[in-house]
Amino acid sequence: MKRITIYDVAKEADVSLATVSRVINGSEVVREDTRVKVQEAIEKLGYKPNAIAQGLALQKTTTIALIVPEASYFYTGQIINGLIDVAKIYKYNIMLHTTTEGISEMNDIIENIIKSRVDGVVIFNDKLNKDELKQLTNYQIPIVVIGNKMSDDTVGSVYVDYAKLVYDYAMKCIKAGKTDLALVEDRKNPAMIKQLKDGLERAFADSGMKFENYIAIPKEYRSSYLFLKEYMSGNIHHDVIITYRDSQAMAVLNTAKEAGLSIPDDMELVCILDSKYNAMARPQISGFKIPDYDLGAVAMRLLTKMLTEENEVMDKEIELSYIFTPRKSTK
Amino acid sequence: MKRITIYDVAKEADVSLATVSRVINGSEVVREDTRVKVQEAIEKLGYKPNAIAQGLALQKTTTIALIVPEASYFYTGQIINGLIDVAKIYKYNIMLHTTTEGISEMNDIIENIIKSRVDGVVIFNDKLNKDELKQLTNYQIPIVVIGNKMSDDTVGSVYVDYAKLVYDYAMKCIKAGKTDLALVEDRKNPAMIKQLKDGLERAFADSGMKFENYIAIPKEYRSSYLFLKEYMSGNIHHDVIITYRDSQAMAVLNTAKEAGLSIPDDMELVCILDSKYNAMARPQISGFKIPDYDLGAVAMRLLTKMLTEENEVMDKEIELSYIFTPRKSTK
Repeated sequence: MKRITIYDVAKEADVSLATVSRVINGSEVVREDTRVKVQEAIEKLGYKPNAIAQGLALQKTTTIALIVPEASYFYTGQIINGLIDVAKIYKYNIMLHTTTEGISEMNDIIENIIKSRVDGVVIFNDKLNKDELKQLTNYQIPIVVIGNKMSDDTVGSVYVDYAKLVYDYAMKCIKAGKTDLALVEDRKNPAMIKQLKDGLERAFADSGMKFENYIAIPKEYRSSYLFLKEYMSGNIHHDVIITYRDSQAMAVLNTAKEAGLSIPDDMELVCILDSKYNAMARPQISGFKIPDYDLGAVAMRLLTKMLTEENEVMDKEIELSYIFTPRKSTK
Repeated sequence: MKRITIYDVAKEADVSLATVSRVINGSEVVREDTRVKVQEAIEKLGYKPNAIAQGLALQKTTTIALIVPEASYFYTGQIINGLIDVAKIYKYNIMLHTTTEGISEMNDIIENIIKSRVDGVVIFNDKLNKDELKQLTNYQIPIVVIGNKMSDDTVGSVYVDYAKLVYDYAMKCIKAGKTDLALVEDRKNPAMIKQLKDGLERAFADSGMKFENYIAIPKEYRSSYLFLKEYMSGNIHHDVIITYRDSQAMAVLNTAKEAGLSIPDDMELVCILDSKYNAMARPQISGFKIPDYDLGAVAMRLLTKMLTEENEVMDKEIELSYIFTPRKSTK
């Protein structure tokens, strides 16, 4: 019989892992109706939180290494929160490591991690390319990658399919007659931009057109803002401008306004990675809510499975969904 | 003879710890003139990075617990970066823990940490009050607190004096004839708001006046924005409005604009905790640059000292300074 986990309870009660965790731990911040719903799911499934926790407590301490990029974005915090909430439930320790560069440093870090005898590794790094990821399969230790689709005997992944996200959005635009879509480059995230570009190119090809409006930021410009200021002053406008991060969306907003263009009337604007700051901009910027907390929680849950249920066949590629949040920068 | 550390080299060369670390590790991102400056400092002081690193490597692995608040602000990432850079140099491992609530959970976490046999603890939590902090002195393990001034046999701290920061700023305003200063409450950070209020009250008392414009956000309002929208629509304005975080500064900016008030002409606006988003707002919001990376780096350095040079008398309260960044929201 498959062991019932907190993850099953969360699915059954249709709440987050954090909420289930709070109910189990008797936290007072949970609403009464939610608490009842979770309790009912626990009883229905026969979930025994203490038995599992105690069972694990009898084993040796399990230590997980978490590797995050040094330049942390706002959502890294939520990923870490989700990961730690699940690690607490299963009584795993987390050793923190950061990385700035590509795979050479990444390899060094992983070598050191293995020497320090951790039991598993979670890597969140949205800048790794395919070759870099491929090298992770060389290690004989369970690894879960957050943000990129890949799997192997010892590697699992939890991710959002950004190429599909932008493909679906582009198809919707094209069907509505908006065919002049532009993507702003993010020099800090070439791997991510490649995914977005792939999705756009596919959507245009499937519609019998070619995607051509890739706005590259030339190296001599210190920031997207400085380049976009010049770009917009040429009175260039598109149906929809797409940016990866909130700071680039704001650069588009500010430079468009400075060039006398009105958003969304002259040009729409959408940000892939939504943040609270998008809601503070005027006009408020539309974006995609990425399930950051869940990325961390599910990654940690997958790793616990890989560590304890080795011989079981399991799905090691877990795709999470996103939600489009329309605000005032799109029509 | 006092052992020469990377910290001394950084001071001598007038660069950050991270830069020294990069030079030692042969990183290519360092500018040539900076590299030369650091090399000169290393030679002048007789600093031997490898000897120290090797010496430490022969000892047992040293593991540090890092406790950060669950709801992480943008600057938590930089604090962690600074901390990890120094931990890497001294070959310390970092075990990550998070906390949401007050001291009850904090005590639980610390008890668990001590059981897991870490050698020292760094706590960053800007919401701890005095009583909560006092309890930290009960533990027989070196602890460094980031963000609050306190010290004891086993406790050290690295902090920015926010009361002094706001005192100095208020005195400057009062001398310039701006006596109608207002502080917006941040319900999420009562301990921090208390420091700011103390500083303002002291500045007004020292000027023969009384500070009275504390803008409390009533509990029934879900966000500062919703309350400020009503507040500003009463056509209320002050000489200068002070907020703690960037999101509150943006709420002031948006609601003032919506009420037909012009910033900075009708009212100036300053944000204590500056962020990159303040520079993206229009008008750009003035703020104080807090040395977040240094808070982490210096805290880690202080802890390594407390762990290895126990009998030496050392300053365990380290105050770091801030820089006022004037932008367009102040005159």
